[in-house]
Parts: sequence; structure tokens; C-alpha cells
Amino acid sequence: MPGIRKNEKIRYRAAGPFFIIQLVKPENLNALEGEDYIYLGELLELADKDPNVYFTVLQSSGRFFSSGADFKGIAKAQGDSSVEYASETSKWLSNFVARNVYVTDAFIKHSKVLICCLNGPAIGMSAALVALCDIVYSMNDKVYLLYPFANLGLVTEGGTTVSLPLKFGINTAYEHLMFNKPFKYDTLCESGFISKNFNMPSPSSETFNTAVLDELRSKVEGLYLPSCLGMKKLLQSNHIDSLNKINSMEVNESLKYWVDGEPLRRFSQLGSKQRKHRL
Amino acid sequence: MPGIRKNEKIRYRAAGPFFIIQLVKPENLNALEGEDYIYLGELLELADKDPNVYFTVLQSSGRFFSSGADFKGIAKAQGDSSVEYASETSKWLSNFVARNVYVTDAFIKHSKVLICCLNGPAIGMSAALVALCDIVYSMNDKVYLLYPFANLGLVTEGGTTVSLPLKFGINTAYEHLMFNKPFKYDTLCESGFISKNFNMPSPSSETFNTAVLDELRSKVEGLYLPSCLGMKKLLQSNHIDSLNKINSMEVNESLKYWVDGEPLRRFSQLGSKQRKHRL
Amino acid sequence: MPGIRKNEKIRYRAAGPFFIIQLVKPENLNALEGEDYIYLGELLELADKDPNVYFTVLQSSGRFFSSGADFKGIAKAQGDSSVEYASETSKWLSNFVARNVYVTDAFIKHSKVLICCLNGPAIGMSAALVALCDIVYSMNDKVYLLYPFANLGLVTEGGTTVSLPLKFGINTAYEHLMFNKPFKYDTLCESGFISKNFNMPSPSSETFNTAVLDELRSKVEGLYLPSCLGMKKLLQSNHIDSLNKINSMEVNESLKYWVDGEPLRRFSQLGSKQRKHRL
Amino acid sequence: MPGIRKNEKIRYRAAGPFFIIQLVKPENLNALEGEDYIYLGELLELADKDPNVYFTVLQSSGRFFSSGADFKGIAKAQGDSSVEYASETSKWLSNFVARNVYVTDAFIKHSKVLICCLNGPAIGMSAALVALCDIVYSMNDKVYLLYPFANLGLVTEGGTTVSLPLKFGINTAYEHLMFNKPFKYDTLCESGFISKNFNMPSPSSETFNTAVLDELRSKVEGLYLPSCLGMKKLLQSNHIDSLNKINSMEVNESLKYWVDGEPLRRFSQLGSKQRKHRL
Amino acid sequence: MPGIRKNEKIRYRAAGPFFIIQLVKPENLNALEGEDYIYLGELLELADKDPNVYFTVLQSSGRFFSSGADFKGIAKAQGDSSVEYASETSKWLSNFVARNVYVTDAFIKHSKVLICCLNGPAIGMSAALVALCDIVYSMNDKVYLLYPFANLGLVTEGGTTVSLPLKFGINTAYEHLMFNKPFKYDTLCESGFISKNFNMPSPSSETFNTAVLDELRSKVEGLYLPSCLGMKKLLQSNHIDSLNKINSMEVNESLKYWVDGEPLRRFSQLGSKQRKHRL
Amino acid sequence: MPGIRKNEKIRYRAAGPFFIIQLVKPENLNALEGEDYIYLGELLELADKDPNVYFTVLQSSGRFFSSGADFKGIAKAQGDSSVEYASETSKWLSNFVARNVYVTDAFIKHSKVLICCLNGPAIGMSAALVALCDIVYSMNDKVYLLYPFANLGLVTEGGTTVSLPLKFGINTAYEHLMFNKPFKYDTLCESGFISKNFNMPSPSSETFNTAVLDELRSKVEGLYLPSCLGMKKLLQSNHIDSLNKINSMEVNESLKYWVDGEPLRRFSQLGSKQRKHRL
Repeated sequence: MPGIRKNEKIRYRAAGPFFIIQLVKPENLNALEGEDYIYLGELLELADKDPNVYFTVLQSSGRFFSSGADFKGIAKAQGDSSVEYASETSKWLSNFVARNVYVTDAFIKHSKVLICCLNGPAIGMSAALVALCDIVYSMNDKVYLLYPFANLGLVTEGGTTVSLPLKFGINTAYEHLMFNKPFKYDTLCESGFISKNFNMPSPSSETFNTAVLDELRSKVEGLYLPSCLGMKKLLQSNHIDSLNKINSMEVNESLKYWVDGEPLRRFSQLGSKQRKHRL
Repeated sequence: MPGIRKNEKIRYRAAGPFFIIQLVKPENLNALEGEDYIYLGELLELADKDPNVYFTVLQSSGRFFSSGADFKGIAKAQGDSSVEYASETSKWLSNFVARNVYVTDAFIKHSKVLICCLNGPAIGMSAALVALCDIVYSMNDKVYLLYPFANLGLVTEGGTTVSLPLKFGINTAYEHLMFNKPFKYDTLCESGFISKNFNMPSPSSETFNTAVLDELRSKVEGLYLPSCLGMKKLLQSNHIDSLNKINSMEVNESLKYWVDGEPLRRFSQLGSKQRKHRL
Repeated sequence: MPGIRKNEKIRYRAAGPFFIIQLVKPENLNALEGEDYIYLGELLELADKDPNVYFTVLQSSGRFFSSGADFKGIAKAQGDSSVEYASETSKWLSNFVARNVYVTDAFIKHSKVLICCLNGPAIGMSAALVALCDIVYSMNDKVYLLYPFANLGLVTEGGTTVSLPLKFGINTAYEHLMFNKPFKYDTLCESGFISKNFNMPSPSSETFNTAVLDELRSKVEGLYLPSCLGMKKLLQSNHIDSLNKINSMEVNESLKYWVDGEPLRRFSQLGSKQRKHRL
Repeated sequence: MPGIRKNEKIRYRAAGPFFIIQLVKPENLNALEGEDYIYLGELLELADKDPNVYFTVLQSSGRFFSSGADFKGIAKAQGDSSVEYASETSKWLSNFVARNVYVTDAFIKHSKVLICCLNGPAIGMSAALVALCDIVYSMNDKVYLLYPFANLGLVTEGGTTVSLPLKFGINTAYEHLMFNKPFKYDTLCESGFISKNFNMPSPSSETFNTAVLDELRSKVEGLYLPSCLGMKKLLQSNHIDSLNKINSMEVNESLKYWVDGEPLRRFSQLGSKQRKHRL
Repeated sequence: MPGIRKNEKIRYRAAGPFFIIQLVKPENLNALEGEDYIYLGELLELADKDPNVYFTVLQSSGRFFSSGADFKGIAKAQGDSSVEYASETSKWLSNFVARNVYVTDAFIKHSKVLICCLNGPAIGMSAALVALCDIVYSMNDKVYLLYPFANLGLVTEGGTTVSLPLKFGINTAYEHLMFNKPFKYDTLCESGFISKNFNMPSPSSETFNTAVLDELRSKVEGLYLPSCLGMKKLLQSNHIDSLNKINSMEVNESLKYWVDGEPLRRFSQLGSKQRKHRL
Repeated sequence: MPGIRKNEKIRYRAAGPFFIIQLVKPENLNALEGEDYIYLGELLELADKDPNVYFTVLQSSGRFFSSGADFKGIAKAQGDSSVEYASETSKWLSNFVARNVYVTDAFIKHSKVLICCLNGPAIGMSAALVALCDIVYSMNDKVYLLYPFANLGLVTEGGTTVSLPLKFGINTAYEHLMFNKPFKYDTLCESGFISKNFNMPSPSSETFNTAVLDELRSKVEGLYLPSCLGMKKLLQSNHIDSLNKINSMEVNESLKYWVDGEPLRRFSQLGSKQRKHRL
């Protein structure tokens, strides 16, 4: 696997039919900057091209799966005086639209089966990517997904306009999106979003990751793996058009909000603890 | 809010970001005539145009949310000798198709978040409109929805062809529609159709309405409400085409049944207590 | 063919595999009132149910195919004090939406091959129905289609939102719809909208109708006619969803304009010769 | 009902508004060969054409609903030297693609309400057909559905690419399809796939079949049955395009696997007990 | 290019970025049997997999491009007593549905740019495949396409339900399909179906084939050929769903006609010169 | 119209119901850099919000409408050492994907009628935007559109995957896209892409712009302009989903080519005259 740079927050490795991507910045709750999301997309492309890979497995570490977009990254985009933008539109196109449309697309069109090992909460764009995975396992009942768009002055992103109603039902999606409510374990479980809960205590994300991988290895034994990719290709055809459509609609709708300035104001309140995520 | 006439069965008022529409004819179980459904649609248009409104809240009063189309209205359409229709087709176009295609459209394309306070059972077209709401809260576990199309010689109307399978699952929709079974509280709850049950005793619809509104007020605190409308616009794009398509298909399919006369026969049996809704 | 009333402007008869519907009010340029459009829809249903019919043939008489909605009918709807409507919305639902959604649907879902013998100009809703026919023959190069929606304060109706771009190309549809330009013979011909021009002098619509029917008879000789219906069913599946969707969207969009009053004002200017169709 | 041959594994009869199709080869777990699936499709056509039929009821007998495609049939296709095929592609087109595209289509477009009496497990193509039924009743909690495509070197067939995500949720469908896991009673029940469990002991499939039919008879009493077919027609329009699309995609994707030989190898391991279905 | 058998009517070779498939049975007007159509599909798969191929070029020889399905093949299917079919449905599934669904799919999903060198008339299924090509060049103005479904007791096949209205306009498609009229050079040209006419005298198909290939070689000079495949992939996404849907619908609709026996009767009249193609 | 910066290559003004946007850099053939395309999008938003605007009119100046993306801008993106990108993906996301997805979206969802005054050739992204206009008038027969994606190592962009087949036919789109052929006046005219040719000599773009505007003024006289916007809204619903879907697909597909480096190589050959556009 040549030609991809390193990233200190995200590691990857191949293990038989599994391509493993791990978030490894637990001290920062695996918050990700724009470049990190792009890096995730590039890793998915790498997995896509590798003929030995049948399953792409997302793992994290520590207490959170990922706390979402790093406020520092957003502040940097805002304050960076080395780059001059012709307009607010230009700035947010470069700093928001570009990466979102890319990483969402990478998840939407990924040709391998996407498996998420949900060790803890996921927020925002990271939670959106979890909702684009095909299969999700949870470490315990403390996991949740939070899409704080209404709290941050944004709109649905990362395909959540389509994925959340599909996976949780329309009314449930509305209740949680409009009022900024986390999707807690019970909802994740009853809806079938989580296929299995490993029921492990919280400080053991490595044990959890290993347990999932062990179980996956035994699950695929004797199976004809090309069948899995053939079925993924067919299943993908169900929603690919809706997801591609919404990807363009979401980023272009969001842009207006970034240009108006509300998300930035609210992100900095969040950074300075004046505003909190509601849980 | 100028230019809209009064209606003795339906009241409305604005309260901050909420536009509240209330059915106020409990002594008649809030049965609605054709004109009342049209009035509902006109109120939705009013809410649509008001830039201060973000949520349209449907409330009712008394024991039932709404017992559906008023038989007396239908009998009037039938017996009214002041209007002469060129044919049965003309009559039912004016008295059924016209209002149904309009009120369904008003709900389908409404740009504000639609919230229903379900204080009791809803039947027929009224139940169809409940199923077009984005969020539903129930007063207690005695609520149900009944779509008695098979019992009345009709077919799915008010977008239920699309909304019921989407919100309850295909097989569940078939079982209830084909055999005229009410969707009872358990099904409403497990499917996520109801987001929260307020668990209040039955004679207290006003208390319930107030409690919901209070909770909504606290839920939207601190949120950026334009985000809610942005997300609604995106979410709406998921099913708007299917709903528009089915709106035309449903009314035109129903027309044949009205012209053949079966619904009228069965409605009058219902009026004279020869036929009952099955619960 | 039992159970259908007579109509003095429209005649019908079966002739072997052909079901012939003829507009017979040349002295009035075959202008049609709401009830006449409904009658057309009822005739299509009759043709649909007749197992001996494979082709439904629309003919007219005199100089015009049909000059569209009769202004007198519209004025009647407006002035009729015998019927009291609860609101402008109610009135126009009964008088406009109802019939349009019905007759458009009847054309959209007709199961027999629809053939139009275009003896002269067609305007408005009548021209919309011509555009829903599968095959069109013209009497001579004086025929044209005019969709005067922008001149009358209306919007596209009768499925023209879909049918005109499909049959004439998008840019051509825009140019003609926005600026109220007639689709003249050359455009009808070059686009393939007209399959054959019979090139007969104008006062001979009967000769033209006979010539088309003779030619049709010889064309179907030796063919297996059930194949024609099988192909129609398949071909219909291409656009049925788009047409159903737009049928509901068009009537509900138009309704706003009727309620605002502009079409009525402009129709009466037309009636009093203050306003003209542009040709 | 003239013109249809007999089949020793499948019986049918009409009973009022019910057309009953029963699998009657319990000693073979109701395994079906290619010809039997075609026969099922032909019976559906028979039910379709009968104007007295409103419901098509699938029953089975013994311990299993159907253990799927009979390995002996597949071996026969392989070993049959009386037929010479120009290529592997030709052989599998005749022996697999042809029947699958047909029987799936017969279920997809069936105009009567499809009811399945699930007396026991169903596997493979037979389980795919169960998932295309509109309503399913179970005999007890020992029923399950198994789609062993990954184990047999195949891909989703019989419309399961569409039906399973629709009826069980996307993530649940992935987990079960990729890892060859049976959909057990709990999942069937919670998802609403099964409308009612009759909770009868296992050796009593006849009692179960009778009980379902009795209950159906009482359920339809007083209903206007043409309404049921009208609603089916409308409901069918929701997914007919997706199902038709996937029917062609599935059989053509599967063909590659048959030509490559993996399914045959694995079916013969299954026949010789070297390979087992995983439960 | 290993593993594909020879076929005496069809040759293939690679020539730089071009994969050339040639019909070489001019003495039989390049009529094709079922197996030959399957062979065509297999060649397309071969071209698909070859990374050096960017364009798949269809050529023929002699006076006709292809006169369509060989009657002798169909008669063989009918008369072949060595194969016993369980029913008429089984027979026609094996002999018609199977090959049609396959070869149509091979053309629909082909990933290389499909170019047809139309040296003369094409009829039936062969003409359907021409209509699925991306680019068509004609030898002279004597070429035509004939879809004699109405004359043969069949319905649209090979995706023509979708391709003909798309490429010729809806009304033109209806006129030609319903009345079994050939699409003559003028229509092919004016609609843009043919991109260039080489205007060569008829007995020179080899010269024509060479001229096209020479021109193609000079056209692609300097181009970045992966861009061509990227654009094909994007363009293909426009209609792939409609084509997949119609592929399944067409073969299953056709089946009824084969089972009823009309096509066979008419094909044998054609074979015995009692019936003619109409030109 | 507050809050929008100036741009030396693009001017705008309102004139009654017309919002006029003019390219005013004829000495540079109106080549546009990334920021200029963004500016175009911002102007469309301005026009969108202005309630007095019904038509957005694009004009240019000099010999060319626009020669497309300015090579100098692309070189700058490449050579700019002040901005450091984490990867090639990041760079091209910021410099290509971001602006393309935005400006394409602005044209796709524009709510006013889009009119293009085509004074001369348009190339690349600029030509893509012309193809998204609703109505096009040409100055004379020297205009052409060139989409040199195959020559530049790119793929279809700016919605051309959808717009070109829709407006020119599929085979014509393939022939021109694959072989980098300009769409010349004859094709533009016969396809109906151009609604009217003003037939003016080349050095007179100002005269042409004035003539078009004068004619537009007289064309809209007496029309009810809200009808135009109502019809645009309906017409837009025909293809908005396809265009949104393709917008995301195109930019993400293109990205791969930018990252691989081929477009940059070819753009610099173009800049240094080693490579030419083919006309």
C-alpha cells in the first residue's frame, strides 16, 4: 500500500480480509480536523483498491469513538491569515464543503463491507460516518450518537438526511434531529442499528476491538468472500442515488449557514464552554 | 394573519415559533367535513408563509383526536339537490377528490416541522394526516389509528399508501390495511411512530396539550431554529416525489369506488349503526 | 357500452379495434367546459374497459381542434350564486383542481394506444391532452399548439410540465412556455411530435378524419393487436411516475393562482377581447 | 382453472376468496427443483386471472416450510449429458437465470394479497419468496429464514437485495447476509415481518394451516374485498420499480458465480454433508 | 484472452484500444440464433475485463447488419424432442427469456464505449442491440432498423421500451413500434442516432469497416482514454436503473406471448414466406 | 443588493424583471478562474433573493462567450507555496471540487428563468453552465460549445453528464464527448438548444446583447410574470434529482484525475501551446 502519508490520529493495517482503520487520539476524544476526515476518505480508497480486502473495519480507542469536528481546526480555518479568500463563500467552500462532499462520497461508494466497532459516543460528522457503515457492534450500553446540527447552526450532513430516517424511522429521526437529542443505546439496539452489543466495561476499547476481530474471523470462516462483495454491490444499488443526491444538497445547503456565520459563533461558544452539547 | 375565515370546529393561534391548530368539537369526536379538511390545508398555508413560525402543532380536544370524515357531510353531498352534477364522476370529483388532493398536498409540502399531539384515537382521513406529521406525542396508551378503507369500500388515501409502510413496515401495513385493524399504542410505540407518551389520564386533553407545548418550549431553547427548517427541507426531499405521485394515484383510484356507490352505502350503514368500525 | 350520458359537444363510437371520440362543436371552435373535460375522461374509461378496443382515436371538426377552456364556463363558476363555497379555495378546488387532476389522470393511465387527428390549432388544456397522446397526425401545416399559461396567470397543467420538455426538448419548452409562443407546424414536425402530415386543405376535417382512419385500418392489417397493448403497457412504465407526480403538483400549484384571482381577471379580459392570445 | 399440469410436490385449490397453494413433500423438507419454482409462478398467474380470488395463501406441510433449492436438481443440471450446452453461460442461463427471473417476477407483480403460513424454516430461494409475501403468520417460535448465499458462493436472489433491507432494516440485513446468519423468530417478530404467531406445537402443520384459514375467513367478513385489491395495487407501486430493477441485476450478477463454478462445488459439499448450513 | 470458444458466425480481435466484434455470416444476412446472442454477451464480458480496451466496436459484413433471430433456431427450440420441458413456460424460459435477459444486460452494463458500424439493415433483437450502442456510424442511406414485434406477436425487447423513445422521441417510437414501420435513414440521421454517414456503396462493408476504424484511430489520438471510460461510467448512471427495470419487465411480459404460441406461428409463416417483414 | 464584492471580469445590474450578469474581459476571451466561477454562483444567489427579478440573463463581450477555466489560475493553484496542503487530495478538493460543486448547484437550483446570450464560443466549465441555462440565443452561426474533457484528462463536469444527453440526444453526446468534438451551430440549432439566432456580425456583442434584451422586454409584455416562476419551479422538478446526484458524482470522479496529475500536465501543455483544443 504505497503512497499515502502518515497521520498521527489515525492508523491503518491490513489483516487478512480485513482492512483496519483506527482512531488513536483518545486523549482528545478522537476529535478530527478537516484533514483527518480527508485522510479517512483516502484510507477507504486504499481499502477499495486492495483485492485482498473484503471488510473495512473502523475502530477507535479510549472513551469516545469520536467527538466530531475539532473546534480548533475550525478556528484555524477562520483565523488563518496566511490564506486569503476572495469571499466567505470561497473560504467555507475550501474548508467545509470540499472535505464533506469527499469523505461522504468515499463512504457512500465504498465497495467493501463497512464495519464499525463502536467503543463509545460519536458526535457530528463522525457520527454521520458511523451511520453510513453497514454493520455496527457496540462495546456496551454507554454508546450514543449525537447529531448536534440544530445546536450548532448547521443542517444534516454526511448523508444523515437519508441514513437516519432509513435506519431509525422517520419520526424518530425528526425528534432527535430537531431537538438535538442523542440516539442512545436503546434506540440503536431496538432499531437494529447495532447488530451485537459486546457488553464490556468502558476502559477496555482494545479488548473490545480484539474481541470483535476474533469474532469476525470466525464468522467468515468457510464463507465465499467474493459473494460478500457481490451482495454489497447489489445492496448498495438500493440507496446510492439518494445518497449521491443528498450529498450535493447537504453541502450546498450547509454552505449558507457557514457563510452567515452562525456555526462559527456556536462552535466558539462550545470551545469556550459557553455552550454545551445536550445529552 | 389576515384573510382567513373562521371555522367553528378548528381554532388556530401563533405562540412564538409555534403555530397551533386545534380541533375544538369534542362533542362530535372532532369529526370533520370536507370543508373542514380544506380549512386545515388553508391554515397550513398560513403557517407556511409566517416567517416567525418554525413548528406547526396539531392539537385536539376531548376523547378523540378525530373520528374522521363526518357522515353527515357525505350524506349532504349525496342528497344536496341545490347542486346539479352532470354525472356521478362530477359529483365525487367536487366532493371528494378535490379536497383530498388538496389537504394531502398541504401536509406533504408543508415547510415547517409538523408536530401532532395525539390525545386519542384518529380515524380515516384524519388518521392519514397524523401519519403525515413529522413528530407525534401521545397522551396515553389508549390512542390508536384506524384506516377503515376496506370496511368502507374505499382505498388508501391521504398518502397512507406511502406513509404507513414507511413508518410501520410493509407487512404490518398490509395486515392492518387489508383487515381493517387499528394500529394500537404498542405498534405506534415500538415502531417509533410515537416519540413520547405523556401518560396522562384520558379526560385531560388540555393538560396534555399544555404539557407538550411546555416541553417543546424547553426543547427548542438555545437551538438555532433556521437549522430546523433547513433540515426539514432536506429530509422532505427523501419522499416528496413518492408522496406527490401517490396523492394523484390515490384520489383517482378512489374515485372509481365513489362512483360505483359502495362507500356511500357503507357510510350510511355506519351512520345508521348497521355497520361499525372494528376495534 | 351502457351507462354514459350524452354530451352535445362530444360524440363517440366504436369501429373495430378503434374507439373514436369526436369533438363536434366547430361553431364554438370546440371550446370545452369543465364538464366536457370530465366527459372526455369518462369516455377514455369506457374505451379502457372494452376488450375489443386497441386504439383510442381523438378527432375534431371544423377549423380548430379545440380552443381550450370555454371562458363562459369559467365565468359561470365564478358567478354562480346557487352554489355557495366556504372559501375561494373550495370554489376552485371544485371547479378547476377536481376536473384537471381527473382528466389528466385518465390520459396518463389510458391502456389503449392514443391517436390524435389534429385538424387545426389546439389551445390550453386541450393542447395539453394532445401532448399526452402517443401518436399525432396533422391535417396540414396550419395546425399549432398554444399553452397560454403565462398570458392567463396560470402555470403548466395537464402534465405539460413533463410532456413538453420530453417531446420538444427542454430549451424549446422553456422558450414557448415562458413567452407564450405557439408550437407551430415546423416545430411539431421536426421534433417528431407529428408522425405524418396529411396535407389537406382546411375546410375538410371530415375528409381528413376518414383518411386517417382508412390509413390506420390498413396499417394494422396482419398485426397481432395484443402486442400493441403489451408494448403500450411497457412504454407507459417509462414516464407514469413522473406524470402522476406532476399531476398532483400542477393542480395544487395552479390552485394558488386561481385563489389569487389573476386567471379569472385575464380570462374575462379575453372574453371581452381586451386580451388576446398571441400567435 | 384449466390447462395447468399437476406437480407432486405442490397442490392448489380455490376456497372462496382464497387461492391456496400448498407444498406437500414434507419427507423431503419441501425442497424444490427449478421446475417446481416455475410451477409456483404458473400457479400465481392462475390466481391472478381468477376474478373470485382476492388472497393467495401459501401453505406448506411437515417440519420445514421449504429447505430451498434441491441439490439433486442442481446436480442433474450439471450432469445431464442429454442436453448439450454451447457454454457454461448457456447452461446456467437455462438452469438458473431463467427460472429465477420468472418466479421472482411472478411474486413481484402478483395482483392479489400474498399471505404466507410459515409452519417452519425456509431457506434460500424459498425464503426469498416468503420475504416477497405481503403478510406472514408463523406456527411457533421455531421458524426461521436462512439466506445462505455467502456459504454457497452465490449472491442475493429472489429480490432479497431489496426486500430484506426494507423489511428488517439495512444493518440487520447486512449482518445476516454477510455472515450467513438465520433470521430467527425474535427478529422476524420485532421487525413486524410476522404479523401473528399462532404458537402451536411443531408436528401440527395441518392444524396451523386450518387455523390460519379460519381466522382469515373471519377477518374478511363484512369487508369490501375489491378495496383490498385496490390497496394492493397502490401499495405495490411503492417498490415495483426497485424490485424489477433488482430482479434483472441479481440474476445477471449471480450468473458469473455459477459460470465460475463455486456454487456447484459448494452445493455438492452440502449434498455430501461436507458442508452444512449454519444455524 | 483465454477460455472462450469459437463461433462460426462471429469473430473478434483486439486492435489497440479497440475490441472488434464482427458478424461474418453475410450469406445468411447475419441472422443469429440464441446461442449466438449469448456468445455476443460473452464477448462483451471479455472486452470489459481487458484493461487495454476502451472501445468495443461492432462490425458486420455483407448486405445486412443482422436480420435478427434466426427462424431455424426458433423452430429447433420448438421441435427439439431430445429436451423435454415440464411446460411451455419452462421451454420458453430456457429458449427465450434466459438469453434475452443476459445479452441485454451485457450491453446495458458494458463499461467500454460501444460503437456500431452499421453496414446495412438490422432487425429485431439485433436492432435492439444497435439501439443500445453509444455511437453509430452508417455505411450509406440504405440502412434501417426494424422492430417487427407487432408483426410477430411479441412485445418490445432488448431494452427498446426505453432506448427507442429516448433516442427517437416518444411519438416517433410509438408510430414505428405500433405499426411495425422501419426506422429509415432519414429518421436515424435527423434524430442524431447516426453520428456520421460514410456514404459508401453497398457491396463494400469491408472498406466501410476499415474506414471507420481508421477514422476512430485518428479521432482518439492525443486523447486521455481513461477519461472516456470515466465519462461512460457517469453517463451510464443516467439510464441504468430504467434499463435494468425494463429488462426484467420485457422478458417476463414477452414470455406470455411465447407461451400462448403466437410468435411461433408467425415466425413459421415468416419462414415459409406466408408472412413478410413490412418495409 | 448589498454585501457582494466587485469582480473585474464580471459585472451585474438589475433592469426591471431582468438580472443581467456580464462577462467583461474580452481581451482574455473571458477565461475564468476558480474565484470567478464562485462569484457567478454568488450573483445567482443575489438574483434568486431579489423579488423583482424573474429572468437572469447571462451576457458576455467580445469574440468568445468564455474560453473556460483560466490556465493561469490552475497553475497558481499548483505552484502556490503559501498554502500547504496535507495531500494532493486536499489541494484539489480546495481548488477544484469545492468551486465546481458550488457553481453547478447554483445553476441547478436557480429559481429564476436562466437566459444565455451566446455571443461566441464557450469552452469547458463555462460551456457546461451554458448547457444548464433554460433558454439560449445566439449572435450568429460562429458560436460553438466545446467540452474538452477527454483532451484534458478530465471527465464530464458542471452537470454535463445529464444536460448534454438531455439536450442533444445520447448518441450525439457520446460522439462529441468521447472524441472532443465541438457542438457546432448546426447541432445547437437543430436540437432546439438555441431558440433563436440573431444573425449579427461578430464584432458586435454589445449590439447583440441590446437586441436580445429589447426583444425580451417586448416578449414579456402583458404576461403575468409570477406564472413564469411557477412554471420554472414545476419544470425544475423534472431533473433536479438527477442533476443533484450527478453533481456529487462528477466532482468526486474528477478528483481522482486531478490527484493523478493528468489534467495539470495537459493544462500546462495547453498553456505552452504544445497542446491545442481541437476544433
